[in-house]
Amino acid sequence: MKIDGQPTRTLWASADGQSVEIIDQTQLPHLLVIKRLVKATDAEQAIRDMWVRGAPLIGVTAAYGMALAARQDASDAGLRQAAAGLAATRPTAVNLVWGVEQILQAILPLPPDLRAAAAWAKAGALAEEDVELCAALGRHGGALLAALWEKKRAAGAERLTILTHCNAGWLAAIDWGTALAPVYRAAELGIPLHIWVDETRPRNQGAALTARELSWAGISHQVIADNAGGHLMQHGLVDAVIVGTDRTTSTGDVCNKIGTYLKALAAFDNGVPFYVGLPGPTIDWSVADGLREIPIEERSHREVTHITGRGPGGELVTVQLTPDGSAAANPAFDVTPARLVTGLITERGVCEASRAGLLSLYPERSPS
Amino acid sequence: MKIDGQPTRTLWASADGQSVEIIDQTQLPHLLVIKRLVKATDAEQAIRDMWVRGAPLIGVTAAYGMALAARQDASDAGLRQAAAGLAATRPTAVNLVWGVEQILQAILPLPPDLRAAAAWAKAGALAEEDVELCAALGRHGGALLAALWEKKRAAGAERLTILTHCNAGWLAAIDWGTALAPVYRAAELGIPLHIWVDETRPRNQGAALTARELSWAGISHQVIADNAGGHLMQHGLVDAVIVGTDRTTSTGDVCNKIGTYLKALAAFDNGVPFYVGLPGPTIDWSVADGLREIPIEERSHREVTHITGRGPGGELVTVQLTPDGSAAANPAFDVTPARLVTGLITERGVCEASRAGLLSLYPERSPS
Repeated sequence: MKIDGQPTRTLWASADGQSVEIIDQTQLPHLLVIKRLVKATDAEQAIRDMWVRGAPLIGVTAAYGMALAARQDASDAGLRQAAAGLAATRPTAVNLVWGVEQILQAILPLPPDLRAAAAWAKAGALAEEDVELCAALGRHGGALLAALWEKKRAAGAERLTILTHCNAGWLAAIDWGTALAPVYRAAELGIPLHIWVDETRPRNQGAALTARELSWAGISHQVIADNAGGHLMQHGLVDAVIVGTDRTTSTGDVCNKIGTYLKALAAFDNGVPFYVGLPGPTIDWSVADGLREIPIEERSHREVTHITGRGPGGELVTVQLTPDGSAAANPAFDVTPARLVTGLITERGVCEASRAGLLSLYPERSPS
Repeated sequence: MKIDGQPTRTLWASADGQSVEIIDQTQLPHLLVIKRLVKATDAEQAIRDMWVRGAPLIGVTAAYGMALAARQDASDAGLRQAAAGLAATRPTAVNLVWGVEQILQAILPLPPDLRAAAAWAKAGALAEEDVELCAALGRHGGALLAALWEKKRAAGAERLTILTHCNAGWLAAIDWGTALAPVYRAAELGIPLHIWVDETRPRNQGAALTARELSWAGISHQVIADNAGGHLMQHGLVDAVIVGTDRTTSTGDVCNKIGTYLKALAAFDNGVPFYVGLPGPTIDWSVADGLREIPIEERSHREVTHITGRGPGGELVTVQLTPDGSAAANPAFDVTPARLVTGLITERGVCEASRAGLLSLYPERSPS
């Protein structure tokens, strides 16, 4: 996507294979800071300190971290040490280990002097694959929004209003994003849009990242408290909800950022379609009951009790919101049952949130 | 209620009738600052600058403001001028005008030299009436929680878990509060409690005020993002929801702080009882359809884009959360349809959220 007219990704490699540049997302939305990763330990720091976040972006950053490691020491021992270091940065991120493994599998069979170049090429290919996946998801979702807009326009609407939760935009991937890819595609198609951006406490990825993306893209939007969406839907101010997902079961239960379930309930109660932008790799075919089988990460309570923003002098300041002596709790995700989901938007098309729906798009997963 | 063992109200009058003391709630939860109101304009400032908030507390503060005015100038003209000044501080607060009118009606018929003492006595009576109302509501709600606890304990539970939204505790009234009065009563009855405190964005009355109240009262609690409640209910971690209300229709639709509707949906979806602490005076007998008839205040967007907390040096700091150039929206209340409400807890008892239910407790409102 573009920043001030300039095509930009969350991560890009130098042509000479010497380094990778990334946007330091901890400075967003207030500052656009680019950081250069030269060594594998730079990539470790980028992941650990959350300069990069979002499952696809973490995976590709880890892959490039391995490529940088191969430039320093392409021996089996050197690569395995780098792999362990990268894997330890955020132990729960599935894509992290996946990115590392993709590189190891590609280069360990090669002689050491060929490994660095091969790793660099493979990391680049993984980045391009992610972009293609998200772009395809965006085309299918954009067509869906175009059809919805035709109906709304025929009924006299002046714009298509979409509510989204958290950030599943291009900042969470390499480009396009998942939940926001259909929005960007709809904008390309000339559909007049207005996006309600859930701020998404406690980490405020909506207020910080989604709002920043939409502002860069020139798409009309308003940031709202997470509490406001139900009221907006009751008053006919939301035409559709689109969210991303961290993990979706084989039956269509959707695990996503905490609070997604509340928006799905409100959408269902008000007859508002509720869609999930779902890249195929985030389907967990081994899980059938999301509510019982998906463990929910409990994150630092400090994310609830404190918040960081831009202070009066322009500097980032962290302030405490709760009284001393009050504890907090911070479940990071919830599960939206498939019964509340109108459709899943994937890179292969749109389907019903059910086993049958998913198998219609991914028939290779059918039990033989 | 008590602060560090000391019985405390949100407002108390000096014995000599010279002044009123209040807790400056803008400093909570971080600082406990008491301010003294000596002149009617002090009361104006207390209401305008939100040192006091909550409908009952605003009403009583305005009444005391009139009593202070009567000490300065008890002429008809003087009193009417003071009334206009107080009424202009927060134009949408119904209780504000009510408090002023109560005093005018009580003292205008009297000769000027008797007015100051009469106003003082009347303001005190209004404060005591509010305390009685909340205490009665607490007794009925406490009995309800005791019955719920008996069932839970019989099923093996170790504590009764209650989720609440916003602040409808004693800080919103003179003492006891509305939604929290049953909780305080249940604590008196020895029921082991744990309270999930919705932080309640954007103004964070839960994180700041409810958490502070529960901490003072020594009641176990955890502050959560507003997004978390649905997940907790899905996992059986909430035995009941209790909220307050700003205005309830004659049919039991409940207008309350934005986000209440989302919690009611989640409670309904998970079979969790959803109660509303409802003082009789907040029933609007003239309204039948809450969703269509109650106008919803749109408050300052700055409440969404900025937040105030305690900075690293202990001082209060306001930080910006959203990018420059991103707009916000800030509807302050929503309406929970009666169909989602398990029961209304009033000063006269508990009833169904319906016209029949309300009339069973307030038969004098029946059409003759």
